[in-house]
Amino acid sequence: MYTHEYPKRVRYGETDQMGYLYYGNYAQYYEIGRVEMLRSLGLTYKEMEEEHGILMPVVHLEMRFVRPAKYDEQLTIRTQLRKLPDQYIVFHVELFNERGKLVNGGRVRLCFVEETSQKTIHAPEFLLEKLRPYFNA
Amino acid sequence: MYTHEYPKRVRYGETDQMGYLYYGNYAQYYEIGRVEMLRSLGLTYKEMEEEHGILMPVVHLEMRFVRPAKYDEQLTIRTQLRKLPDQYIVFHVELFNERGKLVNGGRVRLCFVEETSQKTIHAPEFLLEKLRPYFNA
Amino acid sequence: MYTHEYPKRVRYGETDQMGYLYYGNYAQYYEIGRVEMLRSLGLTYKEMEEEHGILMPVVHLEMRFVRPAKYDEQLTIRTQLRKLPDQYIVFHVELFNERGKLVNGGRVRLCFVEETSQKTIHAPEFLLEKLRPYFNA
Amino acid sequence: MYTHEYPKRVRYGETDQMGYLYYGNYAQYYEIGRVEMLRSLGLTYKEMEEEHGILMPVVHLEMRFVRPAKYDEQLTIRTQLRKLPDQYIVFHVELFNERGKLVNGGRVRLCFVEETSQKTIHAPEFLLEKLRPYFNA
Repeated sequence: MYTHEYPKRVRYGETDQMGYLYYGNYAQYYEIGRVEMLRSLGLTYKEMEEEHGILMPVVHLEMRFVRPAKYDEQLTIRTQLRKLPDQYIVFHVELFNERGKLVNGGRVRLCFVEETSQKTIHAPEFLLEKLRPYFNA
Repeated sequence: MYTHEYPKRVRYGETDQMGYLYYGNYAQYYEIGRVEMLRSLGLTYKEMEEEHGILMPVVHLEMRFVRPAKYDEQLTIRTQLRKLPDQYIVFHVELFNERGKLVNGGRVRLCFVEETSQKTIHAPEFLLEKLRPYFNA
Repeated sequence: MYTHEYPKRVRYGETDQMGYLYYGNYAQYYEIGRVEMLRSLGLTYKEMEEEHGILMPVVHLEMRFVRPAKYDEQLTIRTQLRKLPDQYIVFHVELFNERGKLVNGGRVRLCFVEETSQKTIHAPEFLLEKLRPYFNA
Repeated sequence: MYTHEYPKRVRYGETDQMGYLYYGNYAQYYEIGRVEMLRSLGLTYKEMEEEHGILMPVVHLEMRFVRPAKYDEQLTIRTQLRKLPDQYIVFHVELFNERGKLVNGGRVRLCFVEETSQKTIHAPEFLLEKLRPYFNA
């Protein structure tokens, strides 16, 4: 298992007139979580696209909203990989507020697409290599 | 069952550098779908908030991404209620592109909160009244 | 002079906790205004990019905020060209609420970039051709 | 004069299909710049709203786009106050990329509104107090 945490403050433009983080903005928090997790492993989405020609479109998203997040709260995005990626990579995400309370939890599944052929491929070896030390596989 | 369709064009600012509608923007399409469905019934979110003091926060969201939506495509948002709301209201949503192909499908569950007490309540009678003719209940 | 009007409703996710359309979302309304103006002339951004290889990045934006726009209001985006484009194209934009009151006014200047050379170019002839009938030039 | 710098990374959802930070998202960077400047002075928007009942709507925005910002670039938001606020507060903002090149520059003018009366007021004394040491006034 590999877990990574990253802070993100709720911005004014992200709230709605209920005074809460708008439900449609959580997906961006999930994106930040997984991108920063990859960076913590020494990988970037940017390199995957530019150097390896691999795109990672999202194929499934699920989230439950537990309690509201308010303007200016510093949330913690906790992102987890619970198994090694294969055809897919699944990020489990939880957002906590400053008091450590769960705000939102969910998961997002992405696949790997080779840009030139536009075909889905298996998780690339350079990614698996970085991840294997964290799994018993 | 009550079904409603509403068109929405993919805007430049909604695309990402893959050239597709960014995955985080679909939730806004879902919002448009359900708001316009309610309007087609003669109800508005705005009135629910302002006149009835009822908020409808999202508690669960799930979506699968079937094929990409591209810049300037006119999508059709099909929103369905498959049962009468009770403690929750569940909107089933499907987005189709101009060729009638499914782009994205999912569902979103909301609850009803009384603004003054901040307590969850049952679906209000004025909403059920509008919906009953479409259900065998 | 060429003037075009297009309706756009203020969505929940576009409001902020003041209960108003968030100031950072107006630029998207401006984009919708100019894209739909071009469409009314029989042109699309999409074709300009895909068929003509011309990109139109924004180089300058200015707007004043006159009165707030509220959730669910149907705004009218009035977009004007006051002179024929040359190196630049300048769209003058005004947003009106349902009571015909000015909400926001401004202008946005874009240039023309040839995608292959990444050089700025003069306004393309096929665009000028569509516009000349509306100008005394 | 008071100057403050704050980093912000360009996120995937903020890019458009040109591969650049979408022009409509810069206003959010400006918001982050001024909010974090206030925080560096020991003030927060949140407190201004909640404790002092003062809202700060934007009344004017101007920006020029100098060069594109790309996905995953870490931008520096430099925010400056060049004079003490009076009826208005004007933030001058410049965004620089990782090579220190100017990406975008502009300014945003806000006023102060008393929430209860919905009237514009002069810059509050608790804000001026924090700022005076940085100005010769």
